[in-house]
Amino acid sequence: MISVVVPTAEMSGRLESRLGSARIQVWRLGAAEPFPGPVDLLVLPYMLPAPELARLSGLPVRIAQSQTLGYDGIHDHLPAGVVYCNAVGVHEGSTAELAVALALATLRGIPKAVRDAGQSRWDHQRQPGLAGRRIVLLGVGGVGREVLRRLAPFDVTVELVARTPRAGVHGIDELPGLLPDADVVFVAIPLSASTRQLVDADFLAAMKPGALLVNVSRGGVVDTDALVDALREERVRAALDVTDPEPLPPDHPLWTLPGVVITPHLGGDTDAMDVRIDAIIEEQVRRIGTGEAPLNAVSAP
Amino acid sequence: MISVVVPTAEMSGRLESRLGSARIQVWRLGAAEPFPGPVDLLVLPYMLPAPELARLSGLPVRIAQSQTLGYDGIHDHLPAGVVYCNAVGVHEGSTAELAVALALATLRGIPKAVRDAGQSRWDHQRQPGLAGRRIVLLGVGGVGREVLRRLAPFDVTVELVARTPRAGVHGIDELPGLLPDADVVFVAIPLSASTRQLVDADFLAAMKPGALLVNVSRGGVVDTDALVDALREERVRAALDVTDPEPLPPDHPLWTLPGVVITPHLGGDTDAMDVRIDAIIEEQVRRIGTGEAPLNAVSAP
Repeated sequence: MISVVVPTAEMSGRLESRLGSARIQVWRLGAAEPFPGPVDLLVLPYMLPAPELARLSGLPVRIAQSQTLGYDGIHDHLPAGVVYCNAVGVHEGSTAELAVALALATLRGIPKAVRDAGQSRWDHQRQPGLAGRRIVLLGVGGVGREVLRRLAPFDVTVELVARTPRAGVHGIDELPGLLPDADVVFVAIPLSASTRQLVDADFLAAMKPGALLVNVSRGGVVDTDALVDALREERVRAALDVTDPEPLPPDHPLWTLPGVVITPHLGGDTDAMDVRIDAIIEEQVRRIGTGEAPLNAVSAP
Repeated sequence: MISVVVPTAEMSGRLESRLGSARIQVWRLGAAEPFPGPVDLLVLPYMLPAPELARLSGLPVRIAQSQTLGYDGIHDHLPAGVVYCNAVGVHEGSTAELAVALALATLRGIPKAVRDAGQSRWDHQRQPGLAGRRIVLLGVGGVGREVLRRLAPFDVTVELVARTPRAGVHGIDELPGLLPDADVVFVAIPLSASTRQLVDADFLAAMKPGALLVNVSRGGVVDTDALVDALREERVRAALDVTDPEPLPPDHPLWTLPGVVITPHLGGDTDAMDVRIDAIIEEQVRRIGTGEAPLNAVSAP
C-alpha cells in the first residue's frame, strides 16, 4: 500500500477521496509526534525553511513533496537518497496576480489611501497610474509569463529580461541600458547562485528616479542594504512580497522607510492553491503506483 | 480669433503650442478675478461640483468643457444657452484600472498589509485572491468595457449587467438571480434617475456573504446608509472610490467600519489624463474654427 504523509488534518480530509487505496497519515516535519513508519510521499509544510529538511535525516522517506516553487538552498540540507519535488503550476498564477496587484495598488495610491483612512482623511492627490508605463520584467519562467499575460490589457510596454537571452528576451547584461527607461521593474526570476543580489547598488542606481521595484521572487535576489539606502534617499520605490531576512523583524529599517509596501510573502497563498497542490499529490501517488518517475523532481545543482 | 479659457496656468502652458492661433487665457470658475471677455470654449476645473455651474449665469460662454465623464445633475444648474460637453475617452481606462486595482488589492490583503506595516508587523494570513472568482459587472459603457478588458487574463467568470439587456448582457431585473453567486460586484454604471441608490438594502442583502462591492461610478448609485448597515454586520466588503456624500466627512461611519477600503475619487486622475483632455480641447477648437458641432455635447435629460 502506498503510504502518504501530509502536514495537516485539513489536507488529509481534502485528499481522502482522491488517493484511492493509498494510506494517508498526518505528521508535520518538526513536530514532536513519532514518525509514522516508511513513507513513499511526504508532503512538506507550506513555506518550510530549507534547513528544516535536515530533520529528514535517517527517516524512511522516498519523496519529499514541497508546496512551494522556489528551491534555492534545499540541496544543502536534504539528506542523500530523498527525492525533492517542487510545486510547479501551483503558485505561478497567484504570484503573478500579486505582482500586478502590488504594482497597481502602489501606482494608484491605495497604500496612501489606506493610511489616510486610518485618520478619516479624504486627501485627493493625482496618482501616476499604470497605463503608458514602461516595464522591465526580469524572469520569463512560470511566474514571469503569468505576469506578462496579466499586464497585456493595461496599455504598458514590456521589456523581457532573462538569464538566457533569446528572440524577444534581453540578457541580464543588457539591464544597464534598459533600467534607466523603466517605470516599473518586476523581479520574477528564481533565486540561484547567479541571481543572488542581482538587484544590487549598481542595479538600483541605474533605475529611473522614482521608479518602482516589485519583488515577488525571493528576498535574496535583492541586496537589502543597497535597497534600504536607495529608499532612504527616495531614489526608488519598492513593493516587496519577499524580503531578506524573512520574516522581516520588527526593528528592520524597511518597515519605516518612505515609498515601500511590504506584504508578508503572500504570493502563492490564495484559495486557488489547495486544488492545485492536491492535483500534484494525486499525480505523484499515481506515478508511485505505476513506478514512473515523480513529477517535478529537483536535481542537485 | 477663437477665445479659450482654461482653469490653470499649467494647462495653458501645455496647450500653447497645440491650439494654433486661438487665444488662451487662464481663469478659474469661482475665482475672484474678473471674467476675461467673451469665450468660445471654457474649460471647467476638474471635478467641479455641479451647483458651481450656476456661476456661469450671465457670462458670455458658448461651450463649457468638463474634464469629467459623469454629468448627473448638471442641467439643474447650467444656465440656458451654454453647451456642456463631457470628457468622453479621458477617464474610462484610468477608472477601470482603479476598479481592478481595488479588487486585486482587497482580495490580496494589501490594505491589511499596509496597516500591519504601520506597526512593523509581518502577519502571514492566506488571502482569497482574484483567480477563479465570479464577477458581476454592472455597467457596460466606456468604463465597464475597459474593466472587462482588464479582467480578461485574471481567470475569472464575468456576468455583464446593464439597463438595456441584450445578447450577453443581463438586465437589471436579473440581478436578484446573479448577486448570490458573485464574489465581486463592480459598479461602473452611470448615475442617473434610474440608477440612483440602485445598490440598496435589497441589493446588498442579495449579495453573497463576504462578497466585495467595488464602486468607481458615483457615490449616489449606492444607498450609503444601507451599505453602512451591511458593513457593520460584516455581511459584505466594499472598495469605494466614490462616496455619497463626497468628500466623505471625517466623522462618517464608513471610515471606521470593517472590510472597507476608500480611495478619494482617484478614478480618472492619473498622469494619463492630461494628454487626453488636451486632445479633446484641441478638437473642440478645431470644430469651433470650422463651425462644426462640438464633440460630446450633453443634452438635457
